[in-house]
Amino acid sequence: MLVRNCWYVAAWDYEIPRAGIFSRTIANEPLVFYRKTDGQVVVLEDRCCHRHAPLSQGQHIGDDLRCMYHGLRFGPDGRCVEIPGQAAIPERARVRNFPVREQQNWIWVWMGDPAAADATLIPKGIIALQDPGWTLKSGYLTFNADYMLIVDNLLDFSHITYVHEQTFGGTDVWATQRPKIERIDRGIRVSRWLMDGAPPRYLPKFKNHNGNIDRWSTYDFLVPGILLLHSDMYPAGSNVNDKSNLIFTYTSSSVVTPETSETSHYFFRWGPQSHENPAIADILLQAADAGFAEDRKIIEAQQRVINRGPGPKMVSIAADAGLIQMRRVFDELSRAETVAHAAE
Amino acid sequence: MLVRNCWYVAAWDYEIPRAGIFSRTIANEPLVFYRKTDGQVVVLEDRCCHRHAPLSQGQHIGDDLRCMYHGLRFGPDGRCVEIPGQAAIPERARVRNFPVREQQNWIWVWMGDPAAADATLIPKGIIALQDPGWTLKSGYLTFNADYMLIVDNLLDFSHITYVHEQTFGGTDVWATQRPKIERIDRGIRVSRWLMDGAPPRYLPKFKNHNGNIDRWSTYDFLVPGILLLHSDMYPAGSNVNDKSNLIFTYTSSSVVTPETSETSHYFFRWGPQSHENPAIADILLQAADAGFAEDRKIIEAQQRVINRGPGPKMVSIAADAGLIQMRRVFDELSRAETVAHAAE
Amino acid sequence: MLVRNCWYVAAWDYEIPRAGIFSRTIANEPLVFYRKTDGQVVVLEDRCCHRHAPLSQGQHIGDDLRCMYHGLRFGPDGRCVEIPGQAAIPERARVRNFPVREQQNWIWVWMGDPAAADATLIPKGIIALQDPGWTLKSGYLTFNADYMLIVDNLLDFSHITYVHEQTFGGTDVWATQRPKIERIDRGIRVSRWLMDGAPPRYLPKFKNHNGNIDRWSTYDFLVPGILLLHSDMYPAGSNVNDKSNLIFTYTSSSVVTPETSETSHYFFRWGPQSHENPAIADILLQAADAGFAEDRKIIEAQQRVINRGPGPKMVSIAADAGLIQMRRVFDELSRAETVAHAAE
Repeated sequence: MLVRNCWYVAAWDYEIPRAGIFSRTIANEPLVFYRKTDGQVVVLEDRCCHRHAPLSQGQHIGDDLRCMYHGLRFGPDGRCVEIPGQAAIPERARVRNFPVREQQNWIWVWMGDPAAADATLIPKGIIALQDPGWTLKSGYLTFNADYMLIVDNLLDFSHITYVHEQTFGGTDVWATQRPKIERIDRGIRVSRWLMDGAPPRYLPKFKNHNGNIDRWSTYDFLVPGILLLHSDMYPAGSNVNDKSNLIFTYTSSSVVTPETSETSHYFFRWGPQSHENPAIADILLQAADAGFAEDRKIIEAQQRVINRGPGPKMVSIAADAGLIQMRRVFDELSRAETVAHAAE
Repeated sequence: MLVRNCWYVAAWDYEIPRAGIFSRTIANEPLVFYRKTDGQVVVLEDRCCHRHAPLSQGQHIGDDLRCMYHGLRFGPDGRCVEIPGQAAIPERARVRNFPVREQQNWIWVWMGDPAAADATLIPKGIIALQDPGWTLKSGYLTFNADYMLIVDNLLDFSHITYVHEQTFGGTDVWATQRPKIERIDRGIRVSRWLMDGAPPRYLPKFKNHNGNIDRWSTYDFLVPGILLLHSDMYPAGSNVNDKSNLIFTYTSSSVVTPETSETSHYFFRWGPQSHENPAIADILLQAADAGFAEDRKIIEAQQRVINRGPGPKMVSIAADAGLIQMRRVFDELSRAETVAHAAE
Repeated sequence: MLVRNCWYVAAWDYEIPRAGIFSRTIANEPLVFYRKTDGQVVVLEDRCCHRHAPLSQGQHIGDDLRCMYHGLRFGPDGRCVEIPGQAAIPERARVRNFPVREQQNWIWVWMGDPAAADATLIPKGIIALQDPGWTLKSGYLTFNADYMLIVDNLLDFSHITYVHEQTFGGTDVWATQRPKIERIDRGIRVSRWLMDGAPPRYLPKFKNHNGNIDRWSTYDFLVPGILLLHSDMYPAGSNVNDKSNLIFTYTSSSVVTPETSETSHYFFRWGPQSHENPAIADILLQAADAGFAEDRKIIEAQQRVINRGPGPKMVSIAADAGLIQMRRVFDELSRAETVAHAAE
């Protein structure tokens, strides 16, 4: 069961035009997006209340949307404001309106009870694309897989050794050196020192360092699928308390959002500090494109195996500690929603 | 539930060859069509009674069809007349035969109880392609949508304003001026004057009239999906009782037939009177091709939204009066069939 | 219900590389195949016990396979032998191992209870591709059809008259002269003299004989879908006890194996005796390619008709005697497995 009472990243801000209409399915709900004349994003159910035609094939007029099947016009709150040739507008003539926030370049949509929408639940710590301290590049891809398989992937970086040998990896330290995992609010924190490992394949492309590295890697993973990552690299054996030894630092925020029960959206930003050569951001983007394609290949293959039939129960290993703790977070929130729903 | 005891248009007469075999699925039944040596069309179940191979991959021999899997031969009544290497032919060795009529260029197939087949139920008023009074063009297309969504479309012409703005429309009178709706035998009649509206986009292509028009539009819609339409156009404000004011008249017959529960056939004929320039028929055919493609786009999109999940109950508006009345006609016939079936 | 306790042909021996990995689904089970360093074939479930990623996207290392998602390594018996970064390996960390035999160029996999695997159940009488007495060619194709429809096809050669008129047939004797059918161990034997029939279309391509032939045709059909065929051709009316009258002899072994409930594998070998011109083997291979494509066309069409809906019960004819007897063999084995399973 999906957690409903949370903010899902539905789009990059630059995907929603000033004029015009954007559509995307989030958590099985077809949604239509547009901007009011003041620029504010509106998110409605992409299904006219009259005959269920998609409003995304409609017309954007000022602050409103007109369905281009039989002409019903809807305001930004989802209420029908005009039915051609008819004076009275029935109370029921409305489409669902979704709470939305535009923050740190992402369009966040609240898929649960609108009364419970709480803007403070959008995580802090996401670095804006325009942040002066960083040079960030952004990307988007889709997976033909249940989003929880991608969540699982992000909760166990031991796969970097095997899946990303040619891109992010090149070393077995990810599989053999275990992280510390802490429970935090609505998520977990996964941190570790990776000592004396080969550098990622991309590092020698822009840093004059071919030897092993000691690496600090930490990320927060938050409901419903938000990964906030920071990584520092030092020459192996150097004094890591002396920042002048730092070879390279990057930051990354990735989000996975369910589209349907079998397909998912993936949004990511990644990059070096702004004092670095800006070409590094492009090299990292290339690595990300290649690396996330590796993830997609194995995860979609995993999904196809699962689709074949249930198969035996999955066997847990030590590396699953993050998955298991995070599953507990999801389950607690899900259970709380079910209880709240039953109480109504 | 589909009405079974009625004639469904299954094909144009010119689709069934003199020699050779034609196949099409109608109302979920795979059918095979061929002509006897006297030219009469035969319609059988497209499924050999032996191993369910399609007879449409068989051989047409005189008045019969041979299944080209194991050689069973069937007469035009569907009875097996030969089993290779076997003298006795079991009583059960037969395929279903469907009552068929070839009338006004259409092949009409009775999908219900053959004993109830009544040729008088094929509607009058369809103008033959060869009719000396008219210059008619014909067309066929398929929709990836439940045929009832297309039926609904044909029962509410207010969509012309929005869907067909560039083809049949160009005016809001369709959405704002309501028709009179009458119940007739096995259907409804939808008629109205559309006063002082912009002419359809195609009219100025062949008539020297750019101003607004007063338009008489009337159609009968009959079970299971037959639309018989007539339209007269006059200069806005002219005396419509004086026929010399008439700018243009056309006639059109369209039929929608279910293929499966998710796909449909659409047959149409359309054209001007025969004293007009015959090039007008081609201009109308272009408009029809473009216009029905607009219908298909919105209806298939509507179907995809519906397939996503049930969504909230559809909200009725005044323009749905035709849909609602016609739904009652379907329901009455369906209920009568269920009662008759239970009585057996 | 499929019979599980039997050997299914899963591949040609030459499809499994010395190094590297091969995968194929057999009887709804995704399987992964590789060779140990001694050349012996190993067959495992193609689904890592950890997160159900396919082992066929893994790495072949010596006698083992490593899953390239999180690095678990499995021995040829399916037991996990390494979990990166973890000392203890849980007892449950294993994938299913399937008994396998490599015999007469085919890879035979036992899909049922491993304890019941009995190598003597692999049929005798299959002639190896390297057999000095014959010049055999081999082939493989897939059908989008339930394998039982292909089994049925192979059990009634009356279809040769209709389906293979241009390839194996050219005569109606297959449909009109009935075989003798005997029950044998785990199958049936179908034998007949086909007297005074036209020769198969390919025969005049390499034999100076255009007249009719008398033909001895016999095959064993064995669970789960193995056809072992032998055919001798004589001039029509000649003394068939005098072997010097023999025009041509061929042998063929074909196997149909279920992939899923809707798709199938088909393996065949076919050819003349080795004293014949070796070009004949190529002519026969061409005939086989064309002929099996004819089977595929009608059987896939039959499957599509069946998928449309159940339709009326199939009507049996005399030519179905083989099908009916063989169905009894399948049913007896299935029932025995169910009883044995219930007894556990």
